[in-house]
Formats: sequence, structure tokens, C-alpha cells
Amino acid sequence: MATIVMKFGGTSMAGIERIRGVAARVKREVEAGNQVAIVVSAMAGETDRLVNFCREASPLADPAEYDVVVASGEQITSGLLAIVLQSLGLKARSWLGWQLPVHTSDAHGKARIADVGTEALRAAMAAGEVAVIPGFQGLTDDNRITTLGRGGSDTSAVAVAAALKADRCDIYTDVEGVFTTDPRIVPRARKLAKITYEEMLELASVGAKVLQTRSVELAMKEKVRVQVLSSFSDAPGTMVVDEDEVVEQELIAGVAYDRNEAKVTIGAVPDRPGIVAAIFGPLADANINVDMIVQNIANDATTDVTFTVPRTELARARSVLEANADAIGYARLITDDTVVKISVVGVGMRSHAGVAVTMFKALADRGINVLAITTSEIKVSVLIKEEYLELAVRVLHTAYGLDAAA
Amino acid sequence: MATIVMKFGGTSMAGIERIRGVAARVKREVEAGNQVAIVVSAMAGETDRLVNFCREASPLADPAEYDVVVASGEQITSGLLAIVLQSLGLKARSWLGWQLPVHTSDAHGKARIADVGTEALRAAMAAGEVAVIPGFQGLTDDNRITTLGRGGSDTSAVAVAAALKADRCDIYTDVEGVFTTDPRIVPRARKLAKITYEEMLELASVGAKVLQTRSVELAMKEKVRVQVLSSFSDAPGTMVVDEDEVVEQELIAGVAYDRNEAKVTIGAVPDRPGIVAAIFGPLADANINVDMIVQNIANDATTDVTFTVPRTELARARSVLEANADAIGYARLITDDTVVKISVVGVGMRSHAGVAVTMFKALADRGINVLAITTSEIKVSVLIKEEYLELAVRVLHTAYGLDAAA
Repeated sequence: MATIVMKFGGTSMAGIERIRGVAARVKREVEAGNQVAIVVSAMAGETDRLVNFCREASPLADPAEYDVVVASGEQITSGLLAIVLQSLGLKARSWLGWQLPVHTSDAHGKARIADVGTEALRAAMAAGEVAVIPGFQGLTDDNRITTLGRGGSDTSAVAVAAALKADRCDIYTDVEGVFTTDPRIVPRARKLAKITYEEMLELASVGAKVLQTRSVELAMKEKVRVQVLSSFSDAPGTMVVDEDEVVEQELIAGVAYDRNEAKVTIGAVPDRPGIVAAIFGPLADANINVDMIVQNIANDATTDVTFTVPRTELARARSVLEANADAIGYARLITDDTVVKISVVGVGMRSHAGVAVTMFKALADRGINVLAITTSEIKVSVLIKEEYLELAVRVLHTAYGLDAAA
Repeated sequence: MATIVMKFGGTSMAGIERIRGVAARVKREVEAGNQVAIVVSAMAGETDRLVNFCREASPLADPAEYDVVVASGEQITSGLLAIVLQSLGLKARSWLGWQLPVHTSDAHGKARIADVGTEALRAAMAAGEVAVIPGFQGLTDDNRITTLGRGGSDTSAVAVAAALKADRCDIYTDVEGVFTTDPRIVPRARKLAKITYEEMLELASVGAKVLQTRSVELAMKEKVRVQVLSSFSDAPGTMVVDEDEVVEQELIAGVAYDRNEAKVTIGAVPDRPGIVAAIFGPLADANINVDMIVQNIANDATTDVTFTVPRTELARARSVLEANADAIGYARLITDDTVVKISVVGVGMRSHAGVAVTMFKALADRGINVLAITTSEIKVSVLIKEEYLELAVRVLHTAYGLDAAA
């Protein structure tokens, strides 16, 4: 008998008919002899409705009260799923965040889970009861409701799985698993049977948002075996596992892209110590994430600094830099919001040289200019013009041998 | 400095703009130097939405999970009102049923309040914080959410007022107070400045649903001074108070009517001991409330029994009686769903004879036939044909001298 955590997202919980579909899946796992805990999201659209109420109430809504309002979306679906499970003849009950409790930090709106109380939960599950747990919500030490931030239900599910030492944490979504790249761009993209935690993290960080990043970090730390699969099909999904479980490691797990990029070039700044701090300090103070950074030393004791910021933050970044023009002492400020980041990710590149070269050569062969480069131990990212996005993804998918057999 | 509980119904909480109106009223009470606790309903329509989800999930929804789902409506409005109050510069926070806690019985869906924890609440209010409390919800001894039944927020408000020993419990509704009768029928109906608990209870029991009956019972028991007033006007409302506070007692406080009545006549049943039990036992088993009962002994050792049931239960009552036809042994079963009950209510009738006679005479003068009569210490009710409803209400309102000066 295995202990399984199943997590269902908002699309899977959108309305009673879909909740019946979820319940049927749960019933199968129970009838297979497993102990099952379910973590649910709010109905698709419900959290947005509640967030909008809060914004309308006040643009500066108290995060503690915001949490009281938005946590109710998952409370509703957890009660409804328990009702539907009972109607199928299963024993089931809801366990709200404050009932378990799911202890969190007091950072309302973006709380972090400290621990999950499981004593009563284990007893109920051992007695054959399906536990239905609202995701996204928790409880502070002083007894107030918290939420974990958007997408937090993935993290709730992994935390519950870790606390229960579950054999598996199945995350049901509206995609069938993790693909080698976006199938809308590359029809011959393949679903991966397995992917390592680290690859999953890097893919999430470059725009492939299948799982919330924090849920993957937690799964890696707690060694929770996570499976990503579709609640609308019976196909096996993608297992997210430890590196030593992936026997036939491919060089590259996937090719990802991120359109939320904008390039900033600060031209002809004096090449003196402290200049980098003068540029990036004010941006950090404004809470703007800077990603790729390239510095070209010119001949005339000046330098050009190029970096990227999220496209959604470009206007703010521009005004911060203009406000600090004197302190930095630059001659030109050029921005470009028609760039994208393409990344190849794979733990295999740790033991193989030449991965980056393959990338640069494949792009150069098609005349695609690389504007900036960053690398990590298992990732190479390049910045290119947006018009080349689809071409670049297809070319790299083929270059690394990822295409499915025709 | 007074302690005041203010309760706002679903119409007053329907959307952020209305919640701002509520907050403005609260602010006035705070600025007048009062300590204030607010009890709120869900937005109008929200509880219906949640109840319908539960019904769709299962016609026999587990009442404990039903409570988890429907209690969220008040959770949402309490958080939103706290946010809006803060935006007006007030200190405010929500206190959910499980946080105070509001201890209740474990009769899910219709729980009764046992006690309200006020230690933390008092401390917060003493520190100048407005407390916002979702009505309708509570907590069982084993830590599960309950709800009090429809309209339960009135009872929540009175229970909070009793626990805080509040100076006043103001119930804001969409009417301006308690009237001598329905102003839609009698334009010269008057708003009562004061009414006794007992009169309010009797009026509620005969269809004048301004306050939930249980809230009035609780207010009477705990001597909570309740005021009914409109959240859409600044007019003073009606105080519901103890009898000795009403100095100039009128004979009759009001004339009420109830359209949810149907008459059942069982003709020519044998006049033997146990016959009443044979009729009303099965109806009680089917949970059908029987109201007025009239028995006419005929000459031939048979009797006619006439009684009323709620119109909404008539079909069920009929099939119960038909199923028991042999045991009762009746010759005829006649039903009539075109009757209404008209009641006059007033504590003054305790010390005045002739109140009922005035009623019968006034009705007879207009040719209105009385089909059945019931009386209590402070109420006389008659059953008449529905077509006479408006005429009867007007005639009685005048006969008891209730008409406002022209």
C-alpha cells in the first residue's frame, strides 16, 4: 500500500462536472489500495475574482486581510471535492490550512511553509479516509491565515507529500507532462519520461512554467518524487526525480524560451571602480531583477554595459536609470523590448564539453545574432531578436537530437 | 464610551461600493468615541451560489462539508470590510468564527451558538481596533466549521453583543425598521420607535421576517438592546427592548400576514380516542409543521378536522395523509392553497379584553369569513381567503388605531 498525494489545479477544479472527473481519478487510486491525500486549487478564475475584490477595496490592501479573502477559493473547492467523493461512496473530509495546521511564516501573500501537522491527518488516512486539503493556504504562529503566492498549491502538495513521506506526489495540470520544448512551436517535441529536479528548476526559471519554482526546490530538498501529468488524459506524465534515477541521461533535457525580456544598454560610461554598483544598486533598490549582464571595454576609458530586465519592468528601469544619470555619468541609454531569451538545459552538460559551441554554431548557421550569453552549470542562455524565436527553438531542438522520430 | 455591535446584511455588503458605504457608517461610530464590532453577511447572492454548488455536488451533501463551503461567503466580506476600513485610516481586523472562537453545537447547517470567546477581541477593541466578524459561522468542539442556518448572521450579531455586554446591537437591513404593517399594503403604516422582544418574536413567527427568530429569542434571553435600521438612510430605526422599557404601550404593535398557508380538511373521520394522533403523528414524522387546528363534532359520531400546513409542504402533507388513509379512516380529504393568515400582535392585549372581538367584528363588517382562529397570550391569528388579504390588513390597521396621521 502506497501513500500518494494528488494535486489538482484550477482548470481541473473548474465546476462540479470537472470535480466529478477529479473524484473518479481519486477513486481509482483508493481502489488500487493506496492511502490518498488530495491538494486542490481554487476554481479557475476564482482567485482572480477575489484578488480583484481586494484591489477594488484598496490598492494597498492589508496582506493579512487579502489572505483571509483569497484563501476562501481553495476552502470552497476542498469542501466540494469532499462532498463529491462521499457521493461516490468514499470516506472523505476536508482539512483546512488552520486545521492541519500548515504552519507558515507571517509573510502574508507570499508565506513560506515551515511544517505541516500530520498527526490527525495520518490517523484519518489510516482509517481509510481520503484527505482533501486546500492548497495555497497556511497559518501563522499567531493564528492568522496566510497564502503562499500565486501557484502556491504546487508547493502545498509537495510539502504535504514530504510531511507524509508519500511515495509519490502527482501534480495534475492541463498539459501531459514536461516536453523537450513548446509543442506549439516544435510539433516533434517529445514528452520526457523523467527529468531531474535541477533541470526542472532551470526550465522554470527560463519560462517553462509547468510547476511553481518553490515546489521544485522543496521537492529536491525533501526528495519528493513528483509526477506532472494531465487531468484530462490517462497518459503517463513526467517524473521529476533525483539525478541518479535518470539512467540514460540525455545531453539536453529541453529548449525553453522567455519573451519577458528587454535589453538595456548604457553607452559610454566611465570605466572606473564602483561603476557597476552605481548602475545596479538603484535597480536593486527598486526591486527590479537584472538578468544577463555584458560589459564591453572600449578604447577610450569608457565602457558599454548591456543587461536585461523583465519586459514588464522596462519602463520602471528606464526611469530609475534616468533619475541616476548624473551619478552614473553615461552618454547614452538605449532600450530594446524586442528580444527574447533562448535556453538549453540539461545535467548532461556537466560531463560534456562543447554544448555551448553546438548552440552558437546552430544559430550562426541560420544567421541568428547572439546579443548576450549567460551560463550556469546545466544551462546556456542566449539573447536574440524576438523575430528569430521560433526558428531558433526549432534549430536547437534538432541540433541537440531532441526531435521525435517522424 | 459605548460598546456597539453593528450588523450588516447581504444587500449592504453587495459589492465594494456598498461596503464603502458600510465603512463610512462604522467610521462615524468610531469617531463618536465608541468601541465597535461589526458582524457581516456574505454578499447578496453569494450564499445561494455556494449552496447551489453543494447541491450540484450531491443532493445529500455532507452538512459538515456544506458548512466548509458556504461559510466562505462571510469570510470574504469580513476581509474586504477590514481592508476598506483600513483605507479610511481606521485600525481594523477580521476575526473568523474559528479564531474568536464562536463555539457552537455540532448540528452542521443549523448549529446553535454555545458561547463566544471575547478575550482577544476585547483587548483588540480596547486598543482602538474595529473588529470585523463574519456572521453565520462557528466552530465545533472538534475544530470543524459550522453554520447557523439561513439568516444566522442576526443571531451571530446578538451573540457577540451579549458576550461583549454591548450597549447596543444595531442590525442594518434594507428596511428602515419595524412597521405597524407592510407599507406596500397600507401606505399609512407607521415605523415603530420601540417594540418588545415578545412582539417581535410573534411578528417573526407570522411572516414579518425582519429579524431571524432565534436572534430575537437570544436577545430577549440575554437582554440585548437590538435596533433595526436601514443601511441606506439616516433615519432612526426601531428599538427591540424589554417590555418595561416601552412606556406608552399601544394595544396592538402590528398587523402581519403570511401567505405560506394551506388548509387541509379531513372530513367524516370517526370520533374516537386516538384519532388526532392518527392524523398528526404521520405528519410530524414527515417533519411537516401543523399550525391552526379546528375540530367540529358532527351529529353522526364522525368529526371534521381542519388544520393548516405551510403551502410549500401541502403536496407532501397530502401524500402522507393519503398513505395513512386506512389508519385514519376518513371519508374526504379537501385541501385549499388559497388561504392566508392574518395576525394582530401586541403585549397590550394581556391587560385588555375585547381585542379579538374588535378583530372579528371589523372583518365581519366587510363580509370577510374567518376559516380558523388561533390565539396566544399576545397574538390573535385568523385564516381567511387570500383574495381578502389586503382589505383585511387595511381594515384591521384602522380598527386598532394604527394609521399614521394623514
